[in-house]
Amino acid sequence: MELGPPGGAGPAEPGPRLRGLRGDDRAASAAWLSEASAGRRAPSVAAVLPAGGSGERMGVPTPKQFCPVLERPLISYTLQALERVCWIKDIVVAVTGENMEVMKGIVQRYQHKRISLVEAGVTRHRSIFNGLKALAEDQPNSKLCRPEVVIIHDAVRPFVEEDVLLKVAIAAKEHGAAGAIRPLVSTVISPSADGCLDHSLERASHRASEMPQAFLFDVIYEAYQQCSDYDLEFGTECLQLALKYCHTKAKLVEGSPDLWKVTYKRDLYAAESIIKERISQQICILMDAKEDEEHVGRCLEEMLKKELNHVKVTSGALCHAGRDLQQIILEQCYNFVCVNVMTSDFEETRKLLNALEESNLSILYPVVVISVHFLDYKLVPFGQKMEHLMQIKEFAKEVKKRNILLCGLLIYYPQYFHRMGPLERTSPISGVTKTKPWRAPRVKRRSSVAFPLLFNAAFPATTALEGI
Amino acid sequence: MELGPPGGAGPAEPGPRLRGLRGDDRAASAAWLSEASAGRRAPSVAAVLPAGGSGERMGVPTPKQFCPVLERPLISYTLQALERVCWIKDIVVAVTGENMEVMKGIVQRYQHKRISLVEAGVTRHRSIFNGLKALAEDQPNSKLCRPEVVIIHDAVRPFVEEDVLLKVAIAAKEHGAAGAIRPLVSTVISPSADGCLDHSLERASHRASEMPQAFLFDVIYEAYQQCSDYDLEFGTECLQLALKYCHTKAKLVEGSPDLWKVTYKRDLYAAESIIKERISQQICILMDAKEDEEHVGRCLEEMLKKELNHVKVTSGALCHAGRDLQQIILEQCYNFVCVNVMTSDFEETRKLLNALEESNLSILYPVVVISVHFLDYKLVPFGQKMEHLMQIKEFAKEVKKRNILLCGLLIYYPQYFHRMGPLERTSPISGVTKTKPWRAPRVKRRSSVAFPLLFNAAFPATTALEGI
Repeated sequence: MELGPPGGAGPAEPGPRLRGLRGDDRAASAAWLSEASAGRRAPSVAAVLPAGGSGERMGVPTPKQFCPVLERPLISYTLQALERVCWIKDIVVAVTGENMEVMKGIVQRYQHKRISLVEAGVTRHRSIFNGLKALAEDQPNSKLCRPEVVIIHDAVRPFVEEDVLLKVAIAAKEHGAAGAIRPLVSTVISPSADGCLDHSLERASHRASEMPQAFLFDVIYEAYQQCSDYDLEFGTECLQLALKYCHTKAKLVEGSPDLWKVTYKRDLYAAESIIKERISQQICILMDAKEDEEHVGRCLEEMLKKELNHVKVTSGALCHAGRDLQQIILEQCYNFVCVNVMTSDFEETRKLLNALEESNLSILYPVVVISVHFLDYKLVPFGQKMEHLMQIKEFAKEVKKRNILLCGLLIYYPQYFHRMGPLERTSPISGVTKTKPWRAPRVKRRSSVAFPLLFNAAFPATTALEGI
Repeated sequence: MELGPPGGAGPAEPGPRLRGLRGDDRAASAAWLSEASAGRRAPSVAAVLPAGGSGERMGVPTPKQFCPVLERPLISYTLQALERVCWIKDIVVAVTGENMEVMKGIVQRYQHKRISLVEAGVTRHRSIFNGLKALAEDQPNSKLCRPEVVIIHDAVRPFVEEDVLLKVAIAAKEHGAAGAIRPLVSTVISPSADGCLDHSLERASHRASEMPQAFLFDVIYEAYQQCSDYDLEFGTECLQLALKYCHTKAKLVEGSPDLWKVTYKRDLYAAESIIKERISQQICILMDAKEDEEHVGRCLEEMLKKELNHVKVTSGALCHAGRDLQQIILEQCYNFVCVNVMTSDFEETRKLLNALEESNLSILYPVVVISVHFLDYKLVPFGQKMEHLMQIKEFAKEVKKRNILLCGLLIYYPQYFHRMGPLERTSPISGVTKTKPWRAPRVKRRSSVAFPLLFNAAFPATTALEGI
């Protein structure tokens, strides 16, 4: 079956990412990808995701694949990681009957593409087998195409990268089977019947078998058809089935630490922190005035550049910056600071919020918007300040429903300062004119990244505003 | 050597904690503890903590045991976990020469007790051996006593509980050696020389060997003295040395998931979240007025009780509540809300901060204080409100140096409301009188715990105040 172009992938990240491939791997990948993009000889690839587990080790009633991470179920992150890989044609997810509706809801809500749902079995192996059956074309109701290579992955390993998927798929095409491995973190021991140490295994000569794994479809389907009920009930390792029933020795591929499996509650914490770190590394500053070395937005940019990988600035009113903004949204920027010095209204912020709502950006991750306003003490009376606060509180409530976290910062200063020369600036905080340049409000450093602080602040700050 | 009472343990948690012990274990533990407390026949126990690793898997230049978690080095949490166990008499930490001064600084800063430092070797086994030598009393400069039982633990497993330490120590006394184990998360495989799968191990019949482990001192010291250079260079498993050189089969003890080893960067994130969750489960509300069902502090208490395990309230001026407060501080409460309705000054908050500073509470974990003030619009002019903001900002800066995170919330309301009947209350937020009872400002729910939100807010809120 040949590989056609993927369907519209919604907000999935564009293009193949091949970080970490080297030498022969890179050449093989390039060949694979050029074949894939030409739609000719490249092998067709599908993925099977067993997601029928109960997550008993997590210590929570919700199966771990459905546990929320930043308010989105874990499995949705894994689906996103697979669907952004354009050469995976179908993704078959095996879920239990009781979670079928939940899963359908997740696919719809987060606009996942190329997903087929099948019913999970009572064990992991039976779930995988059900997924393979759906792909085999020999089932009466199957609408899927039999792939040449099938990738098997876990629903609870959300950080799988395209490069390791490609490596196992290429190795499976050549060897019949392939799987990701990692060094052992702990020594493995074999206990005797009386609960004492029988022997310990040499750590250097063993590895942990991780996911993803990939197989020639015919190999793994044959293995599952041949294997015993005991294997289906108690086995854990697909590579072992291919070895035992098809004499196919899997090629082992070194994976990155990111392949780890979310197993315990602490892993959910870790997953949340990793995702926050990833999406907080890009920030866009929108200024309502023209670019100017002395502008407060420029000071902010300089400061943030020391902490973050990607800091972008657009200036001028948003109606002019619209195209820039569209590009920035397309590049998956999730953090915006909207600096208003020319106006005291929220028009610019409102335009930004509209542009964000029109894009699908906040479907997958929360988008953080900090709306900063400088208000002149003499020109804007206190009552109007309170109105501003109420207004931003209402905005925040409204856009929160669409996963946009709005946080307002009103800087109420006694004198007009932002066009003054550096030596005559007046601090908007203390009202005291200083002889050295006024510095923009400091974003305090916490651990090594400043912006996650603003990110974390979005919830409580909107709450705090209620009380001021 | 007999076990005397432990030295002053600073802010360590009081008393033995025996969660999870059952049946025979409980009886044995009870006997052990009663012997330990009587200071008579209980075996003397010491601990050795190898901390010479470079942490190369973490991907950061700082060795992982010195990486900060909530601004405190990871190893300090592990030391706290060991030193709060009163029957562990000495704790020997092996650190490299280049980190010796850093380690001395940590012991001093966090007031760790019963710690001796020795120089680490180039491998983990050599570091443990150096620790054992220091305890053996056969070295010329050793000031330590040879224990009957020695516990070996990792510097990067900060969440070890007393019950598992006790279980391995008891089992070691009986069997000569004992170690904590956990089920395998991944299947373990053996690769062939060509990088393909040779065979996979049955997951059910193997276990991950974790820490802590415990030994009769004579057994493990003998094993280290006998073992080969190859063992010292390439071995990873102490239980294996006891088996190989002393024919001692270790008893295996099932450990909890908390025993996991901080290995990768994600584990630091997880550790931070676990610690935040633990210290955020207890909160104390201090009210400046007498207890009253209609009081805003009572509303807050009711609401927080739905989210947190331990909510305590003290009321009346702090000069009267001083004794209550001392008790609450002793019980390791790290979160305080100081509600001021009777006064507009910060006297009560200042008293609380003084009491916290006098205790050693904030040495080990950050203490969060939310100072809430209701200011009457008509009685307190705007300029005075700004003064309050500046004042709390200064306080926050000052106490931050002592690891106390102060966050101020000024509720500026137009009419006196807190003594009104429920039907005539005026919202301090909108100024609109409603016919239903006014509700205290809502703490929004984020995941399942509300207070971590306030905790997280402490940094950014103090920052935000600068700009208002």
